[in-house]
Amino acid sequence: MIIRKKEHWFRMLFVWHGSVLPALLPRLGLLLILSLLVTYFHGIIFSFKIPLNPAPLTLFGFVLALFLGFRNNVSYDRFWEGRKLWGSLLNTARSLTRQAMTLKNIKNNNVSVPDFIQLLSAFVFALKHQLRGTEAHEDLKSRLNEDQLKIITASKYKPAVIMLLLGEWIQKAKDENCLDSIQQARFDENFDKLSDILGGCERIVSTPIPYSYRVLLHRTVYIYCFLLPFGLVDSLGWFTPLIVVFVAYTFVAFEAIADEIEEPFGTDANDLALNSMCIMIDETIHEMIGEQIAVSQKITQNIID
Amino acid sequence: MIIRKKEHWFRMLFVWHGSVLPALLPRLGLLLILSLLVTYFHGIIFSFKIPLNPAPLTLFGFVLALFLGFRNNVSYDRFWEGRKLWGSLLNTARSLTRQAMTLKNIKNNNVSVPDFIQLLSAFVFALKHQLRGTEAHEDLKSRLNEDQLKIITASKYKPAVIMLLLGEWIQKAKDENCLDSIQQARFDENFDKLSDILGGCERIVSTPIPYSYRVLLHRTVYIYCFLLPFGLVDSLGWFTPLIVVFVAYTFVAFEAIADEIEEPFGTDANDLALNSMCIMIDETIHEMIGEQIAVSQKITQNIID
Amino acid sequence: MIIRKKEHWFRMLFVWHGSVLPALLPRLGLLLILSLLVTYFHGIIFSFKIPLNPAPLTLFGFVLALFLGFRNNVSYDRFWEGRKLWGSLLNTARSLTRQAMTLKNIKNNNVSVPDFIQLLSAFVFALKHQLRGTEAHEDLKSRLNEDQLKIITASKYKPAVIMLLLGEWIQKAKDENCLDSIQQARFDENFDKLSDILGGCERIVSTPIPYSYRVLLHRTVYIYCFLLPFGLVDSLGWFTPLIVVFVAYTFVAFEAIADEIEEPFGTDANDLALNSMCIMIDETIHEMIGEQIAVSQKITQNIID
Amino acid sequence: MIIRKKEHWFRMLFVWHGSVLPALLPRLGLLLILSLLVTYFHGIIFSFKIPLNPAPLTLFGFVLALFLGFRNNVSYDRFWEGRKLWGSLLNTARSLTRQAMTLKNIKNNNVSVPDFIQLLSAFVFALKHQLRGTEAHEDLKSRLNEDQLKIITASKYKPAVIMLLLGEWIQKAKDENCLDSIQQARFDENFDKLSDILGGCERIVSTPIPYSYRVLLHRTVYIYCFLLPFGLVDSLGWFTPLIVVFVAYTFVAFEAIADEIEEPFGTDANDLALNSMCIMIDETIHEMIGEQIAVSQKITQNIID
Amino acid sequence: MIIRKKEHWFRMLFVWHGSVLPALLPRLGLLLILSLLVTYFHGIIFSFKIPLNPAPLTLFGFVLALFLGFRNNVSYDRFWEGRKLWGSLLNTARSLTRQAMTLKNIKNNNVSVPDFIQLLSAFVFALKHQLRGTEAHEDLKSRLNEDQLKIITASKYKPAVIMLLLGEWIQKAKDENCLDSIQQARFDENFDKLSDILGGCERIVSTPIPYSYRVLLHRTVYIYCFLLPFGLVDSLGWFTPLIVVFVAYTFVAFEAIADEIEEPFGTDANDLALNSMCIMIDETIHEMIGEQIAVSQKITQNIID
Repeated sequence: MIIRKKEHWFRMLFVWHGSVLPALLPRLGLLLILSLLVTYFHGIIFSFKIPLNPAPLTLFGFVLALFLGFRNNVSYDRFWEGRKLWGSLLNTARSLTRQAMTLKNIKNNNVSVPDFIQLLSAFVFALKHQLRGTEAHEDLKSRLNEDQLKIITASKYKPAVIMLLLGEWIQKAKDENCLDSIQQARFDENFDKLSDILGGCERIVSTPIPYSYRVLLHRTVYIYCFLLPFGLVDSLGWFTPLIVVFVAYTFVAFEAIADEIEEPFGTDANDLALNSMCIMIDETIHEMIGEQIAVSQKITQNIID
Repeated sequence: MIIRKKEHWFRMLFVWHGSVLPALLPRLGLLLILSLLVTYFHGIIFSFKIPLNPAPLTLFGFVLALFLGFRNNVSYDRFWEGRKLWGSLLNTARSLTRQAMTLKNIKNNNVSVPDFIQLLSAFVFALKHQLRGTEAHEDLKSRLNEDQLKIITASKYKPAVIMLLLGEWIQKAKDENCLDSIQQARFDENFDKLSDILGGCERIVSTPIPYSYRVLLHRTVYIYCFLLPFGLVDSLGWFTPLIVVFVAYTFVAFEAIADEIEEPFGTDANDLALNSMCIMIDETIHEMIGEQIAVSQKITQNIID
Repeated sequence: MIIRKKEHWFRMLFVWHGSVLPALLPRLGLLLILSLLVTYFHGIIFSFKIPLNPAPLTLFGFVLALFLGFRNNVSYDRFWEGRKLWGSLLNTARSLTRQAMTLKNIKNNNVSVPDFIQLLSAFVFALKHQLRGTEAHEDLKSRLNEDQLKIITASKYKPAVIMLLLGEWIQKAKDENCLDSIQQARFDENFDKLSDILGGCERIVSTPIPYSYRVLLHRTVYIYCFLLPFGLVDSLGWFTPLIVVFVAYTFVAFEAIADEIEEPFGTDANDLALNSMCIMIDETIHEMIGEQIAVSQKITQNIID
Repeated sequence: MIIRKKEHWFRMLFVWHGSVLPALLPRLGLLLILSLLVTYFHGIIFSFKIPLNPAPLTLFGFVLALFLGFRNNVSYDRFWEGRKLWGSLLNTARSLTRQAMTLKNIKNNNVSVPDFIQLLSAFVFALKHQLRGTEAHEDLKSRLNEDQLKIITASKYKPAVIMLLLGEWIQKAKDENCLDSIQQARFDENFDKLSDILGGCERIVSTPIPYSYRVLLHRTVYIYCFLLPFGLVDSLGWFTPLIVVFVAYTFVAFEAIADEIEEPFGTDANDLALNSMCIMIDETIHEMIGEQIAVSQKITQNIID
Repeated sequence: MIIRKKEHWFRMLFVWHGSVLPALLPRLGLLLILSLLVTYFHGIIFSFKIPLNPAPLTLFGFVLALFLGFRNNVSYDRFWEGRKLWGSLLNTARSLTRQAMTLKNIKNNNVSVPDFIQLLSAFVFALKHQLRGTEAHEDLKSRLNEDQLKIITASKYKPAVIMLLLGEWIQKAKDENCLDSIQQARFDENFDKLSDILGGCERIVSTPIPYSYRVLLHRTVYIYCFLLPFGLVDSLGWFTPLIVVFVAYTFVAFEAIADEIEEPFGTDANDLALNSMCIMIDETIHEMIGEQIAVSQKITQNIID
């Protein structure tokens, strides 16, 4: 995720990092060359003049913008739902910590709250690794004991199994008379929320926007941009390439951003900063059980992952 | 559902599988022939020149795009709600499994957790078969015992009756002192969620978008496409057929995709992969009760159902 | 509600039943006559030429389409919320049935589950009749005993009072030791849902879209259609009436459908099939308590109410 | 709120009451005079011809419509949320009544259900008066006993304090052994809902749409309408004033309705009928406790408040 | 937040405070100068005529408006979600106060309700300071005792730790037999809501709209405004600067407001009045426990923070 201070409106016009412009340069370059050729030959290919004028392009540009807007809304909703799920993960982690901390006789007992917190933290990291398809072992090793680690390593849906371990910790605490059925029920409700968060993230990852939409819009955007210089050359003359590239930049960039945030758990520039969020959740639940947390140094770079 | 890796923007322009283009070819071909005829005769039918120009078509194209956008939003919302319901089914199945696994003395007892898991799994498969209108017997046979199978086979709303069996399992477990009323209440809340999921899916299947909308939009899209060549032939000349087919492709394809995902539980290319989801839920709840799950082989094809 | 199989795209263009076209024919006929006159006199009224051209009509057509889109969204949301409420009614009825069926000693006792189911079923039918403003007596007679019937007949808000009877059944069952406070609480939560469903339906019925919106849009649509032929006659000539009627059909039909589904509990062609839903809920809860349900004959007609 | 029967499409064109037209007549009159002057002088002011043409007006009209649409959506959402909150108030009042009615031994006891109902009814009326900024004393006097009235009269946030009294009634009933902790918890959940309703209504009243939006849109709409005659006079001639007033009516009326329903608890023609809703809630909860309710006479007027 | 009475439509056209116009004057001034130069030189730069006409600008204006609309919706949703979260904070604070006030024997005991209320109030103020990045110490000093203050001052996520203190107060009250597990569970549910509110606010603050969107839209808006005079000068002549500044004002102001309310917890003119809301919550919960609250003097200024 890109974090930048508010900038002066004028300087923002020339921002390079954080814009999708760099990635699009080759495509826009190609289009620029096409536009220059079209302008040079006045829209004539092999002595055939392409008789395109702005009217159908205006019509179609509008239609395209509407459909791109739809694609965009859907992508942003997915992005924001992903963010909400991770926000909900933070909230639930804090709620569970508060519940564990206010159990009766919890301090002089066989079950320990720090173990519970570690399991919770392991759940968070395991979820991140599952979503990004990375290897969870390093992060889990320091949070789980040997038995737990063995079970988790062997399992395919790691966070789901960690959730089970959390449930077993509570059951054990109940056997030790630290809580009654009613308190257990409250824990249980929050475990259900964890289950919803886990499944919600899996849903976003496993179900992209219907592929046919993406193909259709992709095709239409690019064919449209390719037709633009032919339609504008008669009225805009030598100004055609500039306008074409400007219009194309907007359309293509919109599609590119929508494509990037559609799957918000990746590591693209505009994706969610899962790493930072994992660390933040880890910090806040450890602070709540009274541990000292390291003062995180000031973040200096613009892009956090 | 079509699952494809991210492709290069250029190669994506020529994707064939996963696009709705193949299904639309006959209609677009028809339109192409019409456009060619119109272009050849300069828009004259029986020596009457059709005096259509781009102005009303521009106006109407916008209007049409707006209305198509509405249809599209509604269809996509249905698709996504269907997906959410199945995601919620996964979450609730996991929650119920966790609850069953952390019951007291559950291991040395007459009620067995694997039975419960099998019932849960049967619910999932029965729901799939009800939604697709297929025969559930094969999938239920391996999951239910004889008595259960007889009841379910005879019933019309199978998942609803399986839900009842789940409730009876809990009641039996309570009689065996494995849980108290409070824990039963927590199970009950999750059964209510199952009920909401079941009813939600039935709602989407049984209530399509009001038919009059579909007729109206369908008619308008096709009449519009039929009028296009007459309106554009004077200004675009021999370029008319290409532009007409391009514009028509976008409109018609949008309507076709919206039509396909409106009922997301079918077996069209863009519909939800209910089969894979059933297997996935089956796997994860069996893994949670400690069973070994088969390593699913890598999926190689692009379309999963 | 109109239920039709998927049709061939070509045949769908000529569908008569289920389209709103028949109801709109007089209005469109009027407009056709106006257009023919305008075309015949070349837009001259009493030797004054109406100097309208397509430009302001294009502008205004956009604006109108946007506002119609708003109206349409709102109407559809009301339709879909109504459907969701009835879906939720089905879910809650099933949940309550499941809860009643898994009560302890419920079989050998003074309180009987079939009584409860009949009350539930009465609630559903009473709600339908209240929403449609029809007479509930016939449907309630077979479901309630004499005392209940007397109370309900005398009351103004029938479903609300039936809800109270449901609560009293539970209280009685509790007195018979069939359930404890915790189970009662679970029933209570589902009664609260019934209350929300009832109030939600009443809300949709009693609060239409602000009247000023409807007047404003209605006026604008019709004045616009009336101005259309004057604006198009100069450029479209003898083709004017066809285009005018086509454009007007789309606008007027959209408004008509929005008007129809705005109040989804009525008996218009596109309204919800409350009758069928009542029967379906009745069937499924009776099936759950083990009664044989009649095999409903195949529905042959297209419109169910 | 304006309640009207469905009218014939033709008669609806000439509706006077319920339309915002009357309030807008002065503004539209002003614009008509301007348009007439512009038409008479052919757009020339002090011998300077204003060189405006329809092109920028078309562009800008569309932009304006989009932004107005946004304003409109937001206003309508506030209106509908307000309605939902009051619907939810009805549902919760009924749920609480049902819960109170099914308490054990409630009839022969020191705590009386009618007292509870009166408190509930007082809450509803106090909320209405707080939202409308009117004096609640008259309505509370008949519903509260002397002690209660003294406390409420002295307090600033009346409904919040009544909510507390409801809680105290339950606590007293518990002391009398009419209910246990679990039933109290169910009441408590519904009191939380009352709290959410109260706060939700306060939120809508206290937080209007950001003022800058309203200023910006207001300005843009009126400047646009003022520029319209200059842009259209060359092409429309003597028809300009009619078209200008028609277009302006649509824009200005849309803004006016949005402004009216933005704060839905007032007493404008399109605002919610809080009075009727208060009476309706009062009736239904009194009916539920077995009291006879007066047959409300048929409403004859169109506007209810 | 700007609070203004409803103004006469005519006077509202000239509002200065509360409009974003003042902040935009330099940019619009720059554009005015450019437009004047373009008009003076008839769009010729170094004897090259820029051959831009309104057609592509019209097309692009639509597209831009659509995309701005998207940005705007997202910003407003964030603003309104922020407001909802603070509304929810008020509701939950009241609910917790009601619950604390109706505890058994709460008055003659070691745990005191006013302490609880002070903690609650401290939570509210700590949240405000965290969101605005200001120093909480002053506001917390008067609400917490010394021990509490020390813990909170040392912690990084202050509200989360205060939430823990609230949980501990309840645990202490339970040890004193003021409440049982069931009542504790109800408190717990409301603490979970506090957790959700806290995390929800943190989410909005920490996750802005994807930066690429903002850059893209910002660039497009300003380049578009810069191109406007070249496109319009040929048809509008000396009227160009006025129209350009008017159109640019609308686009730029829309972007500026969207930018302002995107992060609704700041102290910009259109941001939420967190200060007033804190005071209001403080007042209402103190009133509920029977304390006299100061009559707040009439607010006279227009902007509250």
